[in-house]
Amino acid sequence: MNTAPLCHPAWLSAEALPAPASTPAANAQAEADAFFRGAQRRPSLTLDASLGEGYRIDPTPDGWSVTGGEAGLLYGVHALIRALRSKSDIPGGLQKPRYPLRMLNCWDNMDGTIERGYAGRSLWFEGGEFSYDPERIRRLGRMLASVGINVLCVNNVNVHAAARELIGSRLPELAAFADLLRPFAVRLMVSIDFSMPMQEGLPTADPLNPAVAAWWAERVKTVYEAIPDFAGFLVKADSEHRPGPNTYGRTHAEGANMLARALAPCSGVLVWRAFVYNCMQDWRDASIDRPCAAYNVYQPLDGQFDPNVILQVKYGPYDFQPEEPVSPLFFAMPRTRVALEVQLAQEYTGQQIDIFAMPPVWRPMIDDIGAERLAAVAAVSNLGRDANWTGHPFAQLNLYAFGRFAWSPDAEPERVIREWARLTYALPARQEDALVRLLMESHAVYRRYTSPLGLCWMVSPNHHYGPSPYGYEFMAWGTYNRANRYAVGIDRTAGGTGYVTQYPEALRRRYERPETCPEELLLFFHRLPYGWRMRDGRTLIQRIYDDHFLGAEETEAMRRTLEELDFPAEDRQVILERMDRQVEDAREWRDVVNTFFFRFSGEPDADGRKIYP
Amino acid sequence: MNTAPLCHPAWLSAEALPAPASTPAANAQAEADAFFRGAQRRPSLTLDASLGEGYRIDPTPDGWSVTGGEAGLLYGVHALIRALRSKSDIPGGLQKPRYPLRMLNCWDNMDGTIERGYAGRSLWFEGGEFSYDPERIRRLGRMLASVGINVLCVNNVNVHAAARELIGSRLPELAAFADLLRPFAVRLMVSIDFSMPMQEGLPTADPLNPAVAAWWAERVKTVYEAIPDFAGFLVKADSEHRPGPNTYGRTHAEGANMLARALAPCSGVLVWRAFVYNCMQDWRDASIDRPCAAYNVYQPLDGQFDPNVILQVKYGPYDFQPEEPVSPLFFAMPRTRVALEVQLAQEYTGQQIDIFAMPPVWRPMIDDIGAERLAAVAAVSNLGRDANWTGHPFAQLNLYAFGRFAWSPDAEPERVIREWARLTYALPARQEDALVRLLMESHAVYRRYTSPLGLCWMVSPNHHYGPSPYGYEFMAWGTYNRANRYAVGIDRTAGGTGYVTQYPEALRRRYERPETCPEELLLFFHRLPYGWRMRDGRTLIQRIYDDHFLGAEETEAMRRTLEELDFPAEDRQVILERMDRQVEDAREWRDVVNTFFFRFSGEPDADGRKIYP
Repeated sequence: MNTAPLCHPAWLSAEALPAPASTPAANAQAEADAFFRGAQRRPSLTLDASLGEGYRIDPTPDGWSVTGGEAGLLYGVHALIRALRSKSDIPGGLQKPRYPLRMLNCWDNMDGTIERGYAGRSLWFEGGEFSYDPERIRRLGRMLASVGINVLCVNNVNVHAAARELIGSRLPELAAFADLLRPFAVRLMVSIDFSMPMQEGLPTADPLNPAVAAWWAERVKTVYEAIPDFAGFLVKADSEHRPGPNTYGRTHAEGANMLARALAPCSGVLVWRAFVYNCMQDWRDASIDRPCAAYNVYQPLDGQFDPNVILQVKYGPYDFQPEEPVSPLFFAMPRTRVALEVQLAQEYTGQQIDIFAMPPVWRPMIDDIGAERLAAVAAVSNLGRDANWTGHPFAQLNLYAFGRFAWSPDAEPERVIREWARLTYALPARQEDALVRLLMESHAVYRRYTSPLGLCWMVSPNHHYGPSPYGYEFMAWGTYNRANRYAVGIDRTAGGTGYVTQYPEALRRRYERPETCPEELLLFFHRLPYGWRMRDGRTLIQRIYDDHFLGAEETEAMRRTLEELDFPAEDRQVILERMDRQVEDAREWRDVVNTFFFRFSGEPDADGRKIYP
Repeated sequence: MNTAPLCHPAWLSAEALPAPASTPAANAQAEADAFFRGAQRRPSLTLDASLGEGYRIDPTPDGWSVTGGEAGLLYGVHALIRALRSKSDIPGGLQKPRYPLRMLNCWDNMDGTIERGYAGRSLWFEGGEFSYDPERIRRLGRMLASVGINVLCVNNVNVHAAARELIGSRLPELAAFADLLRPFAVRLMVSIDFSMPMQEGLPTADPLNPAVAAWWAERVKTVYEAIPDFAGFLVKADSEHRPGPNTYGRTHAEGANMLARALAPCSGVLVWRAFVYNCMQDWRDASIDRPCAAYNVYQPLDGQFDPNVILQVKYGPYDFQPEEPVSPLFFAMPRTRVALEVQLAQEYTGQQIDIFAMPPVWRPMIDDIGAERLAAVAAVSNLGRDANWTGHPFAQLNLYAFGRFAWSPDAEPERVIREWARLTYALPARQEDALVRLLMESHAVYRRYTSPLGLCWMVSPNHHYGPSPYGYEFMAWGTYNRANRYAVGIDRTAGGTGYVTQYPEALRRRYERPETCPEELLLFFHRLPYGWRMRDGRTLIQRIYDDHFLGAEETEAMRRTLEELDFPAEDRQVILERMDRQVEDAREWRDVVNTFFFRFSGEPDADGRKIYP
């Protein structure tokens, strides 16, 4: 199998993967030896354990001196290689990651499928067990190390029966997998099933029951005996039919703390996902508003979580929609360690068929949240067994960029994209510019031809590719647009569902009046008539039509741009084939969304373009 | 496992299943011996092979003389028992089935699942092979024999890889299964994959290629050597991505005849499903109309099919919707043997949760078609491994009634329903009346609270339970209602898609004008504004609201009725639990459909009832 390089051009291809090393520092030396073999200027590496993940690179007469901790040395070597290859400045002074935990959540099931995976089957599970090519896993480790990702959660947050055995009968397999990734400074995490003690004979999983706490403490001990640097547990509890503490009348804090106390003696963390809402909502009841849910559940618990609990919060209040405001929960938990969760897997953003480069989305998101409010970052993986790792080669960018933003949340999107593009394709300058521009704009194009102006959830139910404007309208998921012949959207102001009041003052003021609300989020916050005047004088309905015609046209322009670029033949074929599908997808979105609103509003397009009746 | 009796009350329960017999006639004797053991009046059985499936029952001083062919004797004994148990007249004179083939199509997959199955897993497949309780299969055989069903197609018309082996490596298993059912006068049929020769090494499956024809002839010979009374093949070709002759530029007649000629020397039949349409339709293209498809494909082929080909046509032009006009194809193929296909599996009619008794639907359907136009009848099975065979005990009625209608297409719905009710529950007279009334009305209630007035396809995509009025609207299946703020429906008159012109004059006249079209099919044939005046003066929109409020209310009345009836405890629990779900389903349909049309039309309910905004 051709395992196309991620973040590594051909000079780090299959042949050049250095021999296995036993520690990150040894691995750093091996990477340096491999890359600089025969070079005039070479780095000399000095381990200074006190630097941990940090490193510094200083010029010397013969090359560079790289000083760092165990992991830091490895990161330093990768940084040096990256700078040389991408012709950028070598970072000066002490470099340290902003967040100690830079986590990749893999939704891999042990049967080999990946929930919301768009790049083939699991890289490490098949047929109910660990099953992998060690060489490929080492390549994965190198990819993660090269951008500083240091925690890999190996299994789906929706834990199925087989996966419970990861901390049971399959613990030796998990330990062997940890051994393979340890030289890359990647530690393992496991998603657990909150009810697991009951699967193993206890009559309850009540977190306040001492026998349950003792069961977990014992189990954690066993895990750490096998994997001393194990990172901890990830938990999706009381969410979408997952078991959790609410079953026993306990709070999420009580549930999380019980597990955290089991992990604390081993320095493990307990990552608790805040993705909690009523997934059996009655569409008739307009008083329930799903975006309000996580805040309502967690804000009262601020201050109650143990220090080794991390509350992992999706970036928006819904669920990885293409356009959402940031979750108000980030501002509501000052006494809680909070992690930001983004989704590299393009569940709602084109499924690695359509192009959706995420850095330009993350920049304002992190600015809105404030990097200082975060204790860690996590991303849902977009990886799979496909030769190019991510289905669409450009989807590699999102993994790459996640690592770069996790290290430096003040990263500049365009710079990261250019860096990735240069490392991956080394195109002529003008072509590189064109590719960077295309990627920088890709999210905006995608948003234009899909749900209008922050409306969300017009996607086909279940598989989530392509339009179905009313497909989620009467379901139990709390995902409504309430379009009728007069208006569309949900009033989330103080006079509506009150969602906007969950924000701190500045954001509340930004969103609460339709006259001043950012137009790309207008229909997230407001219910408006089709004749509503946008700030440029167009009506709302006309803006919807215009965006959709424009977005679809833009995909055709993207197609023409990509055709001009000199990608390697194999990538070119995948890129153009998927671009064709994106053009078709955009056309479908354009026509379905326009027709949907035309049928309700009866308003023709001002420019007389074709809207199907 | 409790295998509740179908069409057989407790006196034919597990203990009384007679010992295995080797022939239908011997089986008839065994059934008679078991039932009349110790009785004063007993039947004496006389085999007259010339009578085939026919029989006659004459009174004698000691009981009755039953004379019949091999199968006829068995049918005669069941008829006698049925008459005695249901206190009805014993049929006088020679009794013969109207159609020689009374076929049950089972959509069982070899992995044990059943496509559109609502009664548990397959009765005979599991884990890729035959796997069954022989006793249960004999019980199944008796059930089928008791109502005269004589062909069982064992596998899904969507043939997956494993099922190809039924006429390959698993032929001995198939033969053993045939042996088990032979004493019940049930012959086997198999759904085949048209491309099978290619799976086994031929470069083509072109029906005009002599090597392909020779391959099939050889394979058929092998099958008949193992199973001399094998019934034949069932084929779904060039439909919903199934392979077929169109791949090679051949017609369906050419495809079918090739297979028929392979079967003819062994007296096998080739059943070819006419369920062919464009399943990659573009919703934008209003010139394509799925109900037109089968007629367009097959009508020109009339006269071209070999005599042992049977064209199996679904009752309506769409796909088993709760309310459809009969397919125009029944009138367009006078020189072709045509079978009617109904679906006992309640895919679109409540999934054996909601009650939908089919005899009152079949009566006008058969009258419209004319029983004389049919050469055979087929039904998609509603059976599964559930203890009560059909999930909902009342769903047994539909299988029972299918057998009775297949034998006598002029059967009276109420009489068949009463017969089944009496055989199954033996309730006091007033309760029996109440149950019969409820079942007689059940289809009308279901139709009232689901898609309005023949509109079809407002069901949730994929699983097909519950409402989603726009869920299929922009998909590729040709399933549109085209509702907008002014009107709803598709104009299928001569001025519209022209579908109505496929009918013979009388039916065309019935349907072509909205003023005279039966109102329950009004929106199948016509596109009408919400203000359209129904014949009683109500507006169309008000009629939609009224039907939905009424239908939901009626389910609550059904609930009250069923609570009063003395069902056996086990059935009672299932019946009431499912009735609760039906009440909830009807409420959901009522509110979703009413809200959908209210949002488009803006028209409030004239009676001020609650329509959610």
